[in-house]
Amino acid sequence: MSTILVVGSVAFDTVQSPSGSVSRILGGAATYFSLAASYFAKVRAIAIVGDDFTEKEERVLLDRGVDIRGIERVPGGKTFHWAGHYLDSLNEAKTLATDLNVFQGFDPKIPKEYEDSDFLFLANIDPKLQANVRRQMPKVKLVGGDTMNYWIAGFRSDLERVLQATDVLLINDGEAKMLADDKGLARAANKILTMGPKALVIKHGEYGATIFFGNGEFGGGTHPFRAPALPIEEVVDPTGAGDSFAGGFMGYLASQSQVTRDVLKRAMFYGGVMGSFAVERFGTERLRSLTRDQIDERFRAFQELSHLP
Amino acid sequence: MSTILVVGSVAFDTVQSPSGSVSRILGGAATYFSLAASYFAKVRAIAIVGDDFTEKEERVLLDRGVDIRGIERVPGGKTFHWAGHYLDSLNEAKTLATDLNVFQGFDPKIPKEYEDSDFLFLANIDPKLQANVRRQMPKVKLVGGDTMNYWIAGFRSDLERVLQATDVLLINDGEAKMLADDKGLARAANKILTMGPKALVIKHGEYGATIFFGNGEFGGGTHPFRAPALPIEEVVDPTGAGDSFAGGFMGYLASQSQVTRDVLKRAMFYGGVMGSFAVERFGTERLRSLTRDQIDERFRAFQELSHLP
Repeated sequence: MSTILVVGSVAFDTVQSPSGSVSRILGGAATYFSLAASYFAKVRAIAIVGDDFTEKEERVLLDRGVDIRGIERVPGGKTFHWAGHYLDSLNEAKTLATDLNVFQGFDPKIPKEYEDSDFLFLANIDPKLQANVRRQMPKVKLVGGDTMNYWIAGFRSDLERVLQATDVLLINDGEAKMLADDKGLARAANKILTMGPKALVIKHGEYGATIFFGNGEFGGGTHPFRAPALPIEEVVDPTGAGDSFAGGFMGYLASQSQVTRDVLKRAMFYGGVMGSFAVERFGTERLRSLTRDQIDERFRAFQELSHLP
Repeated sequence: MSTILVVGSVAFDTVQSPSGSVSRILGGAATYFSLAASYFAKVRAIAIVGDDFTEKEERVLLDRGVDIRGIERVPGGKTFHWAGHYLDSLNEAKTLATDLNVFQGFDPKIPKEYEDSDFLFLANIDPKLQANVRRQMPKVKLVGGDTMNYWIAGFRSDLERVLQATDVLLINDGEAKMLADDKGLARAANKILTMGPKALVIKHGEYGATIFFGNGEFGGGTHPFRAPALPIEEVVDPTGAGDSFAGGFMGYLASQSQVTRDVLKRAMFYGGVMGSFAVERFGTERLRSLTRDQIDERFRAFQELSHLP
């Protein structure tokens, strides 16, 4: 079974949505990614936490077989805490507080046991740290990455450096338009494909996601591919949807013997599937206890939603 | 060949977009609808114009075989004129001027020759007029309709009356949420399906469109179906995209011997196809000179974009 190494945040989230509110529940990009990917491949996580990250939180990851030897504990430190709400729109979080805590001093170290990982996912952290990790993992088969407006706006040259060494970038509409400095989505995508990535996944929230390909990459031309998102009556908590998408996407890639164009297309559906589960409950609740049958059943629902008979 | 009767606006549009600007070119919902539908079925139009609507404009519709005997001329009158721009966003027009002119006195009369029409499309006009037309066409096989925020906000009871007699309503995200008074798209859709329509098409602009079905209607359950929109590098003029979608959608329905669930799904693709052509040039230019081969080729591009191999 292939292994995926993910580097990113583990956090406690305080979230309000129209469905209710929760306080300091386990979250963070590396957490959502790991849980979602764990249904497809062996996941190894690198992150940093304080001593408020207890055995209870550990269990969530260990129960899904996630290797957490790369999660650094800072004695006396506090874990990254994010607070936000979705009361105005389920499509966009309003941030109320960002307490970086130990995350501020994050300097990812790759445990010896992780060095033979097959796939690498650089979740949304400082692009300097992403580049650092990337350099230490020269032999991985495929590198996926994420970023956000903050790094695009203020740390462009660092970001450009890591993009040169990223195979598949996964970002949302707003980030893509900002990165390319172009309001047209298709044009923005094609500009970003000149910055290094061989393929670019642009996530459209409740409308799904599109993958754009560099010409000739992964054995095909430039035709994009679009996967839908499931129309869900009650989105309880959108937090982590994008990271869960990335987990399903990368996890599926890692489960296949080769990353071809067709495998990437199916990975888009598995990304959507895992994102759709994530938002059904607060935090990681739904991602903890899925079965492969439930995942495949939802995959078929995505096909029925988008494929002509 | 089946016939579709469309009632709506014929207008002159003044449009600015990042690609350039045009002044007083032929537009209006009935125009875009008729041209798009004309590739699939025989179209009959009811509208009102002034004497600035000359033989040149007539030719655009006649060349596509559109029956314009129902287009009323008001001697000495001026045709509806709309001015707007897409400089801030291609997804939303900023209206600069709306000169209703003769459209203000529009009181649609159905010519005797139109009375045997098979399908009816009520484009976005006063719901009182829509209801009037609907009443005069009791025997049509299927009624499609459109509306907009203005009628939803201020003329709700009129709108509710016509919705009771509409089979398929085609509106956009914002309109659906406003009509249902619900920010959740899937919930909004299900509320609207209790207002009369058997199926509801919600258009998501550059992200495609979703059709929601009333339970048991058109021979199936409640599973929605989503068609993508084509990622286009240069959207020249978004005006009329929604009406062209409706034209492709209704046109395809009219071209089939029966309106089944599967036919409605394919109609969603043809709607997207005609919308994608419309935005490639200013005004109706692209819709005037298509071939059925070009339409089918784009249909296949939509399939390739959204279907797993």
